[in-house]
Amino acid sequence: MRRRDLLTGAGVMATAASASFPAPAISQGIRHLKMVTDWPEDMPGLQASAVRFAQTIGAATGGRIKVEVFAAGSLVRAFETFDAVSAGVADMYHSFEGYFFSKSPAFHFFSAVPFGFTAAELLGWVRYGGGQELWDALSGQFDVKPLLACSTGCQMGGWFTREVRSPEDYKGLRYRMAGPGAEVLRRMGAVVVTLPGGEIMPALKSGAIAASEWIGPWLDMALGLHQAVGYYYYPAFHEPGSGFSVGINKRVWESFDDNDRRLFETVATSEYAQSLAEFNANNARSLRKLREEGTVKILKFDDQLLKTFLGISKDVVAEIGSGDELARKIYASYQQFRAPTVDWGDISERAYLNSRGLA
Amino acid sequence: MRRRDLLTGAGVMATAASASFPAPAISQGIRHLKMVTDWPEDMPGLQASAVRFAQTIGAATGGRIKVEVFAAGSLVRAFETFDAVSAGVADMYHSFEGYFFSKSPAFHFFSAVPFGFTAAELLGWVRYGGGQELWDALSGQFDVKPLLACSTGCQMGGWFTREVRSPEDYKGLRYRMAGPGAEVLRRMGAVVVTLPGGEIMPALKSGAIAASEWIGPWLDMALGLHQAVGYYYYPAFHEPGSGFSVGINKRVWESFDDNDRRLFETVATSEYAQSLAEFNANNARSLRKLREEGTVKILKFDDQLLKTFLGISKDVVAEIGSGDELARKIYASYQQFRAPTVDWGDISERAYLNSRGLA
Repeated sequence: MRRRDLLTGAGVMATAASASFPAPAISQGIRHLKMVTDWPEDMPGLQASAVRFAQTIGAATGGRIKVEVFAAGSLVRAFETFDAVSAGVADMYHSFEGYFFSKSPAFHFFSAVPFGFTAAELLGWVRYGGGQELWDALSGQFDVKPLLACSTGCQMGGWFTREVRSPEDYKGLRYRMAGPGAEVLRRMGAVVVTLPGGEIMPALKSGAIAASEWIGPWLDMALGLHQAVGYYYYPAFHEPGSGFSVGINKRVWESFDDNDRRLFETVATSEYAQSLAEFNANNARSLRKLREEGTVKILKFDDQLLKTFLGISKDVVAEIGSGDELARKIYASYQQFRAPTVDWGDISERAYLNSRGLA
Repeated sequence: MRRRDLLTGAGVMATAASASFPAPAISQGIRHLKMVTDWPEDMPGLQASAVRFAQTIGAATGGRIKVEVFAAGSLVRAFETFDAVSAGVADMYHSFEGYFFSKSPAFHFFSAVPFGFTAAELLGWVRYGGGQELWDALSGQFDVKPLLACSTGCQMGGWFTREVRSPEDYKGLRYRMAGPGAEVLRRMGAVVVTLPGGEIMPALKSGAIAASEWIGPWLDMALGLHQAVGYYYYPAFHEPGSGFSVGINKRVWESFDDNDRRLFETVATSEYAQSLAEFNANNARSLRKLREEGTVKILKFDDQLLKTFLGISKDVVAEIGSGDELARKIYASYQQFRAPTVDWGDISERAYLNSRGLA
């Protein structure tokens, strides 16, 4: 079906009605779609990327498709975005697949796993390593079509009220972290808690927690974390290239013709690259500012600590990939892509970045 | 102007006619644009990316804009693409800005300079560091609007018929390389030659040259270079994240409404990310194959060599940025973005990739 035919509306309305499914809103030849996000209205980086996604769809279609963006809590509650899209209450979400681990832990592979892919590697696996097909199968069980649409890039290890030198220092450490990285810390003896972003700062100040990860210099400093604690550690073994996604209700996706599907894929991939560029540029600027202020010690995790993280992470990731048959397939694909990718990364960007550091 | 208004054609034709400039071909409401490339018809990675760019524009506009792609030599000769677009003989090119250094050496900054940006960093500078505006000014002098549209990512150091251990080994070494990297080698005493891709293999076999760089495992092995010589060095200090571009004739660009401009920008950024993913995935696979074959030694350049490259590169890049006022502005912007970006890269991806290597 050509988009011009779609514009008459009749075909779509008939299909939707016959499937007794709420018809996507079409008025005056304009298709209205609702996007729900898991981000506050004013959150830079993530909500801003969702809004740009919507604007680009509007522009690229000359206004033929309008995507209205609803921040967390404005149409559905935060973290209910996936269910809302699955049920057709909203047409698409902008979120982080790891949030949906209770449906299947395998969702983690499409956002972040400890010692997993960098931003570029994740896109490589999804686009050229069979990742998209497996993700389609996973999300398809819930009537969702997923696309990589945003990336924070490499995150930071976290903020600490005191130095950590060895695995021993993690015993009893009250640490704010979520996801598979939290499980790694738990196995090291840390007391892991989850807190929304807005509660990290008071919890660190009151001593309720002694450490917390968030994202990177740009958004961490926006929360004021550098004013609460004195130690900022790198690298983020737990989120080396976090991917964020747009998930589209499957019937909405199937109502698109091939051209519109390609457009959505293109806008998603463009936003993936652009958001990564924005995070990197702003993280670099914020880091510069942090160094100039000079009040925070910016430290690399000790290699012995990193080796401990690495060993436990291997187990945790294997467990994430040991669920049902599809989860095992996803893990096998991830592993199969990872080995040659790490080898190539080692002799290309890793070797280059180290040689640049010889100055 | 909305795209529907543009489709009537009258406005565009009138503007073009009054400017005594060949009107972009419009027939039956469909706009036809010609893209000339500097790649052979069957070249994977680069020509394939140009073709995908054209296909995506066609799909995203529902066929309203059709981009026809002409491989090197089929409409204009290779490396005459820029002039063709500047003069309006073609509507856009797909090429490598460094090829146009004779117009201004500053073009190198938008493709690759020794010890410059990785693929992600280049996009960061162009999109969020003022790079695009400076590039617009540079290319605008020639009636071209440039966009980053493709990336090979980090390349390889090159193929050698013998081991190179110290800067001394470069004296008299007959090396095939182009661009600023070649100037670095020249200052080390190498005899630098330029040869088209197809002539590298016979030249290495005959002993006419003793070393050559090309791109990375995927395309190098497609040329058969691994069957000609025994040593493959990394990293590519000279092209750590080569960017490729689409340049659009300025009047064609100005004839687009805001929506179509945003569409072209989006497709370009999407292709930048997708081509990078394709190169990385295929480089990883080809490297695996190369290791399995076991006939080529894959070696890291000695640190002392890399330090020598680094020192000379600094001078060469400074000279590239020391031309006219605009070139100096571009270099200043590049330098200003580079320092915090290297700092951030060091504590994020570099530190992460090194920690992943502790396994």
